[in-house]
Amino acid sequence: MPKHFCALLFLPAILAAQTPAVSGRWFATVDFHGTPLYFNMKLEQRGAAITGQFGGDKLEGAINGESIRFLARDPRGGSEELTGVVRDGSISGSMVFVDPNDAGHPVTRHFSAAIVPTRGSTQPKLHDFVPTAFHRQFSPFNKPVLTVWPGDSIHTTTVDAGGTDHKGVTRVMGGNPQTGPFYIQTAGPGDTLAVHFTKIRLNRGWAISDDGVVPRALDADLAVKMRDAGKSVRWLLDVERGVARPEKPGEHMARYSVPLRPMLGCVAVAPRPVQAPPSTGDSGRWGGNMDFNEVVEGATVYLPVNVPGALLYVGDGHAAQGDGELNGDALETSMDVEFTVDLIAGRSAPGPRVESATHIMAVGLDGSLDDAFRAATANMARWLETDYKLTPSEVAQVLGTAAEYKVSEAADRNAGIVLKIAKDRLAPLAPAR
Amino acid sequence: MPKHFCALLFLPAILAAQTPAVSGRWFATVDFHGTPLYFNMKLEQRGAAITGQFGGDKLEGAINGESIRFLARDPRGGSEELTGVVRDGSISGSMVFVDPNDAGHPVTRHFSAAIVPTRGSTQPKLHDFVPTAFHRQFSPFNKPVLTVWPGDSIHTTTVDAGGTDHKGVTRVMGGNPQTGPFYIQTAGPGDTLAVHFTKIRLNRGWAISDDGVVPRALDADLAVKMRDAGKSVRWLLDVERGVARPEKPGEHMARYSVPLRPMLGCVAVAPRPVQAPPSTGDSGRWGGNMDFNEVVEGATVYLPVNVPGALLYVGDGHAAQGDGELNGDALETSMDVEFTVDLIAGRSAPGPRVESATHIMAVGLDGSLDDAFRAATANMARWLETDYKLTPSEVAQVLGTAAEYKVSEAADRNAGIVLKIAKDRLAPLAPAR
Amino acid sequence: MPKHFCALLFLPAILAAQTPAVSGRWFATVDFHGTPLYFNMKLEQRGAAITGQFGGDKLEGAINGESIRFLARDPRGGSEELTGVVRDGSISGSMVFVDPNDAGHPVTRHFSAAIVPTRGSTQPKLHDFVPTAFHRQFSPFNKPVLTVWPGDSIHTTTVDAGGTDHKGVTRVMGGNPQTGPFYIQTAGPGDTLAVHFTKIRLNRGWAISDDGVVPRALDADLAVKMRDAGKSVRWLLDVERGVARPEKPGEHMARYSVPLRPMLGCVAVAPRPVQAPPSTGDSGRWGGNMDFNEVVEGATVYLPVNVPGALLYVGDGHAAQGDGELNGDALETSMDVEFTVDLIAGRSAPGPRVESATHIMAVGLDGSLDDAFRAATANMARWLETDYKLTPSEVAQVLGTAAEYKVSEAADRNAGIVLKIAKDRLAPLAPAR
Amino acid sequence: MPKHFCALLFLPAILAAQTPAVSGRWFATVDFHGTPLYFNMKLEQRGAAITGQFGGDKLEGAINGESIRFLARDPRGGSEELTGVVRDGSISGSMVFVDPNDAGHPVTRHFSAAIVPTRGSTQPKLHDFVPTAFHRQFSPFNKPVLTVWPGDSIHTTTVDAGGTDHKGVTRVMGGNPQTGPFYIQTAGPGDTLAVHFTKIRLNRGWAISDDGVVPRALDADLAVKMRDAGKSVRWLLDVERGVARPEKPGEHMARYSVPLRPMLGCVAVAPRPVQAPPSTGDSGRWGGNMDFNEVVEGATVYLPVNVPGALLYVGDGHAAQGDGELNGDALETSMDVEFTVDLIAGRSAPGPRVESATHIMAVGLDGSLDDAFRAATANMARWLETDYKLTPSEVAQVLGTAAEYKVSEAADRNAGIVLKIAKDRLAPLAPAR
Repeated sequence: MPKHFCALLFLPAILAAQTPAVSGRWFATVDFHGTPLYFNMKLEQRGAAITGQFGGDKLEGAINGESIRFLARDPRGGSEELTGVVRDGSISGSMVFVDPNDAGHPVTRHFSAAIVPTRGSTQPKLHDFVPTAFHRQFSPFNKPVLTVWPGDSIHTTTVDAGGTDHKGVTRVMGGNPQTGPFYIQTAGPGDTLAVHFTKIRLNRGWAISDDGVVPRALDADLAVKMRDAGKSVRWLLDVERGVARPEKPGEHMARYSVPLRPMLGCVAVAPRPVQAPPSTGDSGRWGGNMDFNEVVEGATVYLPVNVPGALLYVGDGHAAQGDGELNGDALETSMDVEFTVDLIAGRSAPGPRVESATHIMAVGLDGSLDDAFRAATANMARWLETDYKLTPSEVAQVLGTAAEYKVSEAADRNAGIVLKIAKDRLAPLAPAR
Repeated sequence: MPKHFCALLFLPAILAAQTPAVSGRWFATVDFHGTPLYFNMKLEQRGAAITGQFGGDKLEGAINGESIRFLARDPRGGSEELTGVVRDGSISGSMVFVDPNDAGHPVTRHFSAAIVPTRGSTQPKLHDFVPTAFHRQFSPFNKPVLTVWPGDSIHTTTVDAGGTDHKGVTRVMGGNPQTGPFYIQTAGPGDTLAVHFTKIRLNRGWAISDDGVVPRALDADLAVKMRDAGKSVRWLLDVERGVARPEKPGEHMARYSVPLRPMLGCVAVAPRPVQAPPSTGDSGRWGGNMDFNEVVEGATVYLPVNVPGALLYVGDGHAAQGDGELNGDALETSMDVEFTVDLIAGRSAPGPRVESATHIMAVGLDGSLDDAFRAATANMARWLETDYKLTPSEVAQVLGTAAEYKVSEAADRNAGIVLKIAKDRLAPLAPAR
Repeated sequence: MPKHFCALLFLPAILAAQTPAVSGRWFATVDFHGTPLYFNMKLEQRGAAITGQFGGDKLEGAINGESIRFLARDPRGGSEELTGVVRDGSISGSMVFVDPNDAGHPVTRHFSAAIVPTRGSTQPKLHDFVPTAFHRQFSPFNKPVLTVWPGDSIHTTTVDAGGTDHKGVTRVMGGNPQTGPFYIQTAGPGDTLAVHFTKIRLNRGWAISDDGVVPRALDADLAVKMRDAGKSVRWLLDVERGVARPEKPGEHMARYSVPLRPMLGCVAVAPRPVQAPPSTGDSGRWGGNMDFNEVVEGATVYLPVNVPGALLYVGDGHAAQGDGELNGDALETSMDVEFTVDLIAGRSAPGPRVESATHIMAVGLDGSLDDAFRAATANMARWLETDYKLTPSEVAQVLGTAAEYKVSEAADRNAGIVLKIAKDRLAPLAPAR
Repeated sequence: MPKHFCALLFLPAILAAQTPAVSGRWFATVDFHGTPLYFNMKLEQRGAAITGQFGGDKLEGAINGESIRFLARDPRGGSEELTGVVRDGSISGSMVFVDPNDAGHPVTRHFSAAIVPTRGSTQPKLHDFVPTAFHRQFSPFNKPVLTVWPGDSIHTTTVDAGGTDHKGVTRVMGGNPQTGPFYIQTAGPGDTLAVHFTKIRLNRGWAISDDGVVPRALDADLAVKMRDAGKSVRWLLDVERGVARPEKPGEHMARYSVPLRPMLGCVAVAPRPVQAPPSTGDSGRWGGNMDFNEVVEGATVYLPVNVPGALLYVGDGHAAQGDGELNGDALETSMDVEFTVDLIAGRSAPGPRVESATHIMAVGLDGSLDDAFRAATANMARWLETDYKLTPSEVAQVLGTAAEYKVSEAADRNAGIVLKIAKDRLAPLAPAR
């Protein structure tokens, strides 16, 4: 969160009292040998007394001028003790951790926290963002290019998977370079970010693909047949007719065309810093290179937030793509996109989810289709349990009668399976969220 | 093929000459230590001289009264030599095999062959068949219950997976007991049987399912959640409103219903006798318990023929089923079915295929979803290559842009993945078949 | 169990009273639409009163002359009621089943039972059995070729996978034809059969293999490389030097040889009749074509018994085999074998197990290596829990520090993984069994 | 490569001529939008004329004073043209790439190159390295901590997987923090680095593990059984007796112990910079967190080099580990290690390889055991083909008779399977390498 912004927001409070007002939600950062771990923190101030929660543990303490101290205890017998200074909506200091698993040796770590701002009465805003640099890792360490509030929209563009923009200029090395990251105010670990795509539109007349088949789809016979495949194939995108066709088709494909259905191969939030920042070719619980061809205009992607601000990335536009991205490349092209971001506070999920006008969809991503299938099923089972309050027996009955499974991704390290359920089926079940 | 039938058909020919007329297509059966192997045979007779093919190998020989002899040679240096007697449209005798791989030791085996009849000018016929017994193996050794010609239709019924009929009477032990097998005249190894379903209709008001989730869909978390699941659940089938609903719904499912979409879980031809006759819970290149929820009224199932007459089985009706049959049971019910059989002579495929009004679909069946995915892809690639004459590069481009993959089966020993391509996409490619 | 044998054993008891003595263990068979289901039964007779257990359910009844009646109740509210006649150590009659799941409709089925004989004071015996026929299915319906008692030994021979015997005579069609089945007195469902191999010896000087690689082991590159492979390769077996070498080696392999390590690819008991009799190329909980190269002389194979008498099959000898049987064929040869059978009464396991001088080994068999790995782990976890009384936490610690996993089978429909633990590690844990 | 070092080495050459001597092997670095790509380059200088190779493409050019120019052409019609300046054993300048696939548009990129030094007559040296910082990514961007020559040895220490050293001091956040990277002079892309471990010794008396079972090993039953598992377990390492035992054993494990067999879970070279630097929990063609319990004292690990200097990392010591690291943690401990590095110039492999006194071993790493199995097989097939000159038919015969497969890794994102072949078997085949 940009410092200057907080400063402005909290100026009145700071001036009003010698002892700063600390009631509210905070994002705390604790340094573990150089790696930041994030904790949600909630403080309630009554006079000098402080109560609240640190990372889910109850805390008690006191504030005295700029000095703040508290002790939080976890149910397993551990504790976290803060000694810090409050200034300008921030706390900095040190925290002593006692872990009963670690023979109770106390360890002291650097601590900082920033209060989570609350939006005033401002209207949601549409931001226009012109990217100048692109990222090749879904990193929590990349500097945000724009800070927006939940409810705001962003209009921007993405380069194609090879790093080439709508003018045909290669702006960055290939590998799904991303636009972003965007910082979403108030988004914190434990929340879900909802990204609703209001526009995913083509902005140039060609795409690049190839004529290979990814190893995951090859049995021994097809491998032999495809042994010389993999050449680059250029496609023409005819927006007027709504179709794409190969620029130089083989003899049997002179009349072949596919309907344009622009989509984004990548939508991601930053994963936790404890994990190595993943390549923009990778995917996980935090989204990423899912290559799911229903991430189209009108769809909403839900991603569990891992770091303050969520840090949203978008990229890897495809003019059209068969299930699984069987050539490794889809019809790779640059894109004009617009999306509205929103938060579901305090809801987290075991994996990415997508919603269309007609379906809810749970994405399973893992090292094999078999494991991805299990992940998608577990993701949807949790959805039905949490949002629709179904019992295990009911979950099973709904899955057995309403499940639609498709292979979403076969081209990358993680395979993808998506479990879709029609909203029609769920309407009679659905409680208010 | 029933003997008496042949006898009638060929009576004039047999009477006309002392040396019987043998020109035509034959199904030959060679006994290997009690296991029959089937071979296509073609004989052309000019006077006493015989030419033709035996199992693809060129043959030359002679006929003298009822005595027939020929020698066929394969390109690798082996040979098959027949000494036999022709009588009533059949040949019986012995065949001497020389296999260069087997050090050239000749082995003698019992040989029989029946001429393949040709239909007269008869119109296609609708047969009404009332089953009295049901089979629990897709066996090539079960006696045909009815013999029909390509173009004919059959109207019949199936019991549910538990062996219970439309009156609620259990007729046979459970495990997908089948109606059939039906013998299709002229169908032989190397052909494809097309089964076009003109009716798949409910004939009772209830179905049986359960509330478990199959092991293939369980990750560790969901396994724990589902550890007490698996109870029987009875569903009411409301044909008028076109929906099914649980008879005794849990509290969140009082208003839950699913659209009826009657389908057959099993459509099969008999596999080769060299393989142990599979359970009706199993599936393979010959079809079987595919549990694919697009085998509905209006669909055509294509299966590669392995034995003379194909021996078609149908069963395991589901009133409705989510993808993958996640409960192990779908909404299991008895069914009223009608289908037309046809042959595509001389075309074979690596696996089952299905065609709807809108799509061609290649079924992949194997021990994991990953292997089934490869099988489905290879099956479709072969289809595009054979019927649409595409080059490997073109196959890849069509798959990359038009593939739709769904998980068809997760409940049984073989997992199933189906690769669908919209006929719209293929229309500009399609040559005359 | 052969009738005449029982008759002899129980002659004194039968003569001694008008009301036959029925106390003891029985194997009951109930006919479900032609499929036999087996139940363990235990009867205790006091005067006219009968108590005991049927399939685990407590029973009470009475015997009057040859007439016997009893009623058993299961804890879920169902019941089984017998009306029968006792004669010559057998009961026949009918049983009425009431299943609360099935709306309580009573169904009547044919019932028969044979008393389980007890061995007299006879010494264990070595039987010499010369096979004259061979089976291509592990069927519960094949007639036993020999009946033996636990503790007895059998000396016999097996033909090779292609059906060829030690004299080079092909006796049966290929596909792992089996010697047996052997009926083991007193073995019943719920017991474990132990087969201890005292001899697995070569009885001819050659073996057949090939130079292909099974599809499960091929990635795209290796598939291309191996596209022309699969030719038959003959090996010479030099028992004196203890090695095998290719008869006509390629230029780099003129000096290549492998140590002889004769093993049996197949050891099986019959599965339950409710399942289609499996091919001798298949495997499962009942053993079968496991192709595990530690089933050598000195090893003991444990298999869960499914039918009265167990019905033991052996076959598919390999002179030597790399892990996984990568060519599809190992060094296939005929074999001279001798083994002792024994029973562990009332112990059952989720899969086959093997014991050597140094290790206990749990076999996992399933449609992928990933699933076989889970099956092997679960099989061993159960072993440690049942026989060594370990808690889940202790099971995990032993597995984490002592597991040795090998790939045992890659050539067949089921992949195989074996989890081995050195007995040295377990000795400090081991309770008396 | 440290500049100062080169400068010293090449001082005489530089002084000897106004036109610097450029003959020799070079590592060239081309900047692609901030990502360095590495190329091997070879220059031969005759007067002003330059010939040689750039990235495998033939080049021709000239040198004039400090100015150097050349043009290389690739067989597909592309070209690379350098314009640069030679100074102090380095070239810097720009390179114009023409790619026929990219419509022939020339693109200009920054170019630099450093000559590959050649060792003088110095003896191999043993370096003692005391680590002060540890890395949590196998990054090509981490600064080398030490530069050594092929043939040299390094003695150093590693912290445990949790970042704790031999004194029990936690030095870095957990997750397999690594010692290194070590820069190996002359090692370049296309070479293989051989790391021969002469010492892997315990340096403290305890290890940390846990009592969970990794998800990859859990079927539904075992998942339920293990649902409360995962607690930390401390082990005591008794070097004198050569065993480890749990500090507070459960009741059945009071006498349980396992032999110490110290190993390194991680040995890696840096991957190419085009890929996101992987976590030290990950593995790949470049090695990494393989958790293979035969990487013990006496073993040699072979890794394909991807960047100049190879950048070798070591870490994640285990006092003992069952196959697959089934608890997720092995007996995690700090370690004292010594190893000699060497190069096999111009040999590359599709994956890591290990050699012991008795076996060569090909490691397969992929997202499922099934894919890892294929990778291991392909890796070994290539080894037999390249080093032993076997034909595909011969490769198949050796694999079929000599393969030993073990599961090496089940705990991490990549599963691991290792294919071992006894050197005894290969000795009669082996040509001079």
